[in-house]
Amino acid sequence: MSFQEQIHDVAQLAMVELFTPKFEESFWFFHDVLGMTPTEDDGTSCYLRAYEDRYHHSLKLTRADHAGVGVVSWRAASPQALERRVAAIEASGRPGKWVEGHKGYGRAYEFTTPDGHTQHLFWDVEYFKPSADQKSKLLSRPQKRPLRGVPVRRIDHLNLLCSDVTKNAKFMQDTMGFLKRENVVFGGQDELACWLSVSPLVHEVAFTKDQAGPGNRLHHLAFWYGNQGQMLDLADVLMEYDVHIEAGPAKHGVSQAYFMYVYEPGGNRIELFGDSGYLIFDPEWKTLTWTEENFFNGGGVWFGGELPQDFFVYGTPIVEAAAEAAQAEAEVEPAE
Amino acid sequence: MSFQEQIHDVAQLAMVELFTPKFEESFWFFHDVLGMTPTEDDGTSCYLRAYEDRYHHSLKLTRADHAGVGVVSWRAASPQALERRVAAIEASGRPGKWVEGHKGYGRAYEFTTPDGHTQHLFWDVEYFKPSADQKSKLLSRPQKRPLRGVPVRRIDHLNLLCSDVTKNAKFMQDTMGFLKRENVVFGGQDELACWLSVSPLVHEVAFTKDQAGPGNRLHHLAFWYGNQGQMLDLADVLMEYDVHIEAGPAKHGVSQAYFMYVYEPGGNRIELFGDSGYLIFDPEWKTLTWTEENFFNGGGVWFGGELPQDFFVYGTPIVEAAAEAAQAEAEVEPAE
Amino acid sequence: MSFQEQIHDVAQLAMVELFTPKFEESFWFFHDVLGMTPTEDDGTSCYLRAYEDRYHHSLKLTRADHAGVGVVSWRAASPQALERRVAAIEASGRPGKWVEGHKGYGRAYEFTTPDGHTQHLFWDVEYFKPSADQKSKLLSRPQKRPLRGVPVRRIDHLNLLCSDVTKNAKFMQDTMGFLKRENVVFGGQDELACWLSVSPLVHEVAFTKDQAGPGNRLHHLAFWYGNQGQMLDLADVLMEYDVHIEAGPAKHGVSQAYFMYVYEPGGNRIELFGDSGYLIFDPEWKTLTWTEENFFNGGGVWFGGELPQDFFVYGTPIVEAAAEAAQAEAEVEPAE
Amino acid sequence: MSFQEQIHDVAQLAMVELFTPKFEESFWFFHDVLGMTPTEDDGTSCYLRAYEDRYHHSLKLTRADHAGVGVVSWRAASPQALERRVAAIEASGRPGKWVEGHKGYGRAYEFTTPDGHTQHLFWDVEYFKPSADQKSKLLSRPQKRPLRGVPVRRIDHLNLLCSDVTKNAKFMQDTMGFLKRENVVFGGQDELACWLSVSPLVHEVAFTKDQAGPGNRLHHLAFWYGNQGQMLDLADVLMEYDVHIEAGPAKHGVSQAYFMYVYEPGGNRIELFGDSGYLIFDPEWKTLTWTEENFFNGGGVWFGGELPQDFFVYGTPIVEAAAEAAQAEAEVEPAE
Repeated sequence: MSFQEQIHDVAQLAMVELFTPKFEESFWFFHDVLGMTPTEDDGTSCYLRAYEDRYHHSLKLTRADHAGVGVVSWRAASPQALERRVAAIEASGRPGKWVEGHKGYGRAYEFTTPDGHTQHLFWDVEYFKPSADQKSKLLSRPQKRPLRGVPVRRIDHLNLLCSDVTKNAKFMQDTMGFLKRENVVFGGQDELACWLSVSPLVHEVAFTKDQAGPGNRLHHLAFWYGNQGQMLDLADVLMEYDVHIEAGPAKHGVSQAYFMYVYEPGGNRIELFGDSGYLIFDPEWKTLTWTEENFFNGGGVWFGGELPQDFFVYGTPIVEAAAEAAQAEAEVEPAE
Repeated sequence: MSFQEQIHDVAQLAMVELFTPKFEESFWFFHDVLGMTPTEDDGTSCYLRAYEDRYHHSLKLTRADHAGVGVVSWRAASPQALERRVAAIEASGRPGKWVEGHKGYGRAYEFTTPDGHTQHLFWDVEYFKPSADQKSKLLSRPQKRPLRGVPVRRIDHLNLLCSDVTKNAKFMQDTMGFLKRENVVFGGQDELACWLSVSPLVHEVAFTKDQAGPGNRLHHLAFWYGNQGQMLDLADVLMEYDVHIEAGPAKHGVSQAYFMYVYEPGGNRIELFGDSGYLIFDPEWKTLTWTEENFFNGGGVWFGGELPQDFFVYGTPIVEAAAEAAQAEAEVEPAE
Repeated sequence: MSFQEQIHDVAQLAMVELFTPKFEESFWFFHDVLGMTPTEDDGTSCYLRAYEDRYHHSLKLTRADHAGVGVVSWRAASPQALERRVAAIEASGRPGKWVEGHKGYGRAYEFTTPDGHTQHLFWDVEYFKPSADQKSKLLSRPQKRPLRGVPVRRIDHLNLLCSDVTKNAKFMQDTMGFLKRENVVFGGQDELACWLSVSPLVHEVAFTKDQAGPGNRLHHLAFWYGNQGQMLDLADVLMEYDVHIEAGPAKHGVSQAYFMYVYEPGGNRIELFGDSGYLIFDPEWKTLTWTEENFFNGGGVWFGGELPQDFFVYGTPIVEAAAEAAQAEAEVEPAE
Repeated sequence: MSFQEQIHDVAQLAMVELFTPKFEESFWFFHDVLGMTPTEDDGTSCYLRAYEDRYHHSLKLTRADHAGVGVVSWRAASPQALERRVAAIEASGRPGKWVEGHKGYGRAYEFTTPDGHTQHLFWDVEYFKPSADQKSKLLSRPQKRPLRGVPVRRIDHLNLLCSDVTKNAKFMQDTMGFLKRENVVFGGQDELACWLSVSPLVHEVAFTKDQAGPGNRLHHLAFWYGNQGQMLDLADVLMEYDVHIEAGPAKHGVSQAYFMYVYEPGGNRIELFGDSGYLIFDPEWKTLTWTEENFFNGGGVWFGGELPQDFFVYGTPIVEAAAEAAQAEAEVEPAE
């Protein structure tokens, strides 16, 4: 009877900020190719949404001198849930604070993962309001499907590179109520990657061992199509317009995602998710562990070609930039 | 701060019992065409699963003299959740009782909807154990994908015909924690249909006004493909083998399901769900209401042809059988 | 040994002219929704191509006061083949003449079907020359796939309404070398429709009995996707932007086409062809005849809903306009 | 006026014989996984067809001690065409003879490519006659679509490994009327591969330089789905049942085929063709030549991962077996 009940206090991954050193090209990618709709641009950041994203934005695209991930914003399941999770974060001993004034939502609690990835948790949100021209007859669709590119439907998840997978995951499990759905462990060594969720999705966030860098980086941000055919159309278009496809379209064993990984012109890896993967409804779900043997026999790729070496080492900021940033930060600190 | 938090005590629709007067033909349909795997057959009922269903069965196919739905079985989210929901049902004043011995799960609480549809809520469950030959290398898949027919992946939802949509829905909302995601109301009249869920799915159960019968009937039971192309393959196969397609493949506005409705040889309407529809993560979701105007302008069918008249009146048991059953029941009752 | 060998003198349907009374809206449909690329506009007509069409244009869109079809242009298989077919047409007794100056090709022989549809047969053609930006890395693709709408790949076929199906078909068979691949004949009555081709395609031209008008009209012009999924995407988009879908996406038994019929804003029916249908390589192919019984049991629609009544009577020019045009022509003739 | 007209004397690739040292496993693959239907088995060979193949068989599966290709059988376009092509072959100086008694067709002319691949050209053919149970309502379909595996629709093409690509191709062009649609030539060296057709298909036969063996081997035999989604389904199934996928599902630039290459259990490489590629209707088509630069930038693979090294060297018989066979043949010849 001591069954540990799932916490349902985090509702969804709502918004992610990406840095780009090539704003115009990145904007072209998200707007013209992925068909995303800009809400506003404050000169520093442009805010965009997929056509079934419900809020002010799901992507904050920020002009910067290097690629990478900025704030990751989660919506709480209720005002009460927000308070409960803040209490849990504070009890964990990690620093955090309430912040105001972020575009798209109200008061938010800001904290970081052990690796340093900035997170926001909020309740009050600004909904997207379509213009008369944008309004869809489909009640569940916040705006008409655009006529540009091969349009993505909604934000799905992100994958963060970190120095210690287990530690970062445990923090998200303990404080935010995430469940670990799948992971990769080779021969009793440290966890190489894990996939965590607060919903029937297999993951809203994944952590991957940063094998080439200092951690606190981005592996990828994923948008969702839910549709295999659109992935093939997108791949066709990406080849025509010289956007680098790193891998796919292909199917992962892990998460059963039909995936494609591309580098947006600013350098960030973007995953396009081309089906529904599988959904987890079983409340007794136990973490599925891929070992060296089965990861390379269906786990990494179920079908559709191999994952190239870059997939395991490339992230943003790229290592040199990440190293410089880390050093600059170190120098700033009151070096005794 | 008085935001009403969602109850997460029902985890999923686990199993549904269907009655069939043509067992052999129905078995052929579920086994050879939908590729389901039988677990056991006790002479009265045969128990089958889709290849990604995790438990002993998701379909209990029972030999009977007429078509229709039997027990609808829900899995609770925890032992505690089970107790909480039973308390709520008991508090509602509707009768119920604990039952034992149903194949596939342990002790269950049995109750009925206001219309009389029998429901079970349980926690202890029997997992499917694949034979060595059946075992998949894909860790999240309980068995290999079969080589028969166009195999369905998992049970999805059911739609129940009832005499009073709002009343039945309210019971499921109040006692089981369902949320009303979409509904149909024409000109201030009674609710014609509504779609309810306990998860990001738009519905695990729907209620539809029984316009041709006494209520307490089945509109349809749905299995999930999550994939548009497989629906076209299935339609091709159904035409070849003379299984009646009532409507589709086509896309509903309601739920955004890419659907097909067929009559299995025993007479029950089966829906095949051919994509992922849309998922609801917004905790402030408000019921989407389709009116006469927009239901016939994208709601009923977003694209792919019209819903035929049968869709609105046919159910199982068919009306004559339902009437007889109701009468027989009435006669049995101590008519004073 | 007296086997009648196939004539291979007509290579392909190259170009079709459509009249539209709503040029701007029609242009939006072909350019923004079907993703076609304009080559030039001479003020009267705009010339467009699908991205895998190889010549100057495949669609000549002409400003007019009513919808309908203009010149239908066929490319001969060689200069010699052109001469042979002209000889055959002349031998048939139907009038014809050499014309010059049509955009996109050189000298052409102009003639009409018995019903009066204007046809051109030519050899010398102007190839599309992509700009540097338009050039694709895919050698077989004359230009990059566009980023607009859901782009069609190439022109496929057209279906002409006529007063006497058999007579028109026979003319195309006898003079141009078409083969009759399938047809519809109910109970020994006149042929209702037939599908003719000069290649392994089931048809480049079809003739349908004009049941509501005087004949010499257009049933539809078809563009090809070759892909089921893109049809579902297009249907989604058409619903959003209020383009009338008459039928589909669905699969014909006849020709095995996965089809959708829409009315472009100017009123012409356009078919979108969403797979490869089937191809005919057997040189002993015998016309497949659909009767009343099997046409309504898989022939008209194999799956995906019924063909509405409009499908059997609507054409362009619409009947009133067609009647007026016929009358005006009649009045002009005696001209004193 | 000296335009060289296309010869249309070869109608189609009708049948191919494969040798297998593991008959039972190979039969399981073609029957249970690819859903092919056996017509008869004479103890040495089993004859199978895809469900839209029209003749007695398209695959002759022969028990043997090594994998490889046997007779390749082409249907002529007419009895006259057969005579014309035989005359051309005889005029070419290559040996040939009339043979009788092959299952599925009548008198045939047997000859070899310069590399030694055995070919038959015939006219009289035996059509497949479905049993009452097999008969489809779809007039263009010779039998119902099977309920086994992911069934292929028809035979498509084959690719032969040879010692001199240009020489073998030229023979097929000069004597049989094939046209060279695409080829690969690196830096002025010998042709590495070319694709030839007698119809709008890009190829019914391809020749590839045998870089690892003596030539006169099989690269692959291809069956056609015409459908992207079915390829993903098949890939899923192949992974489950441990059939080796060498590459794909992915899209070639050459031929625009959406392909997958697998090794059937007997060792022969089989290609599954998952869309319609593109079709050639232009009578002035000029061979598209891929160079080192563009072959590795979209030609070999347009999207979907790289072609592994095996793709360029593996063939059947495998090299050792091929070498032994060649030696054995050499030893037998002088026969003292």
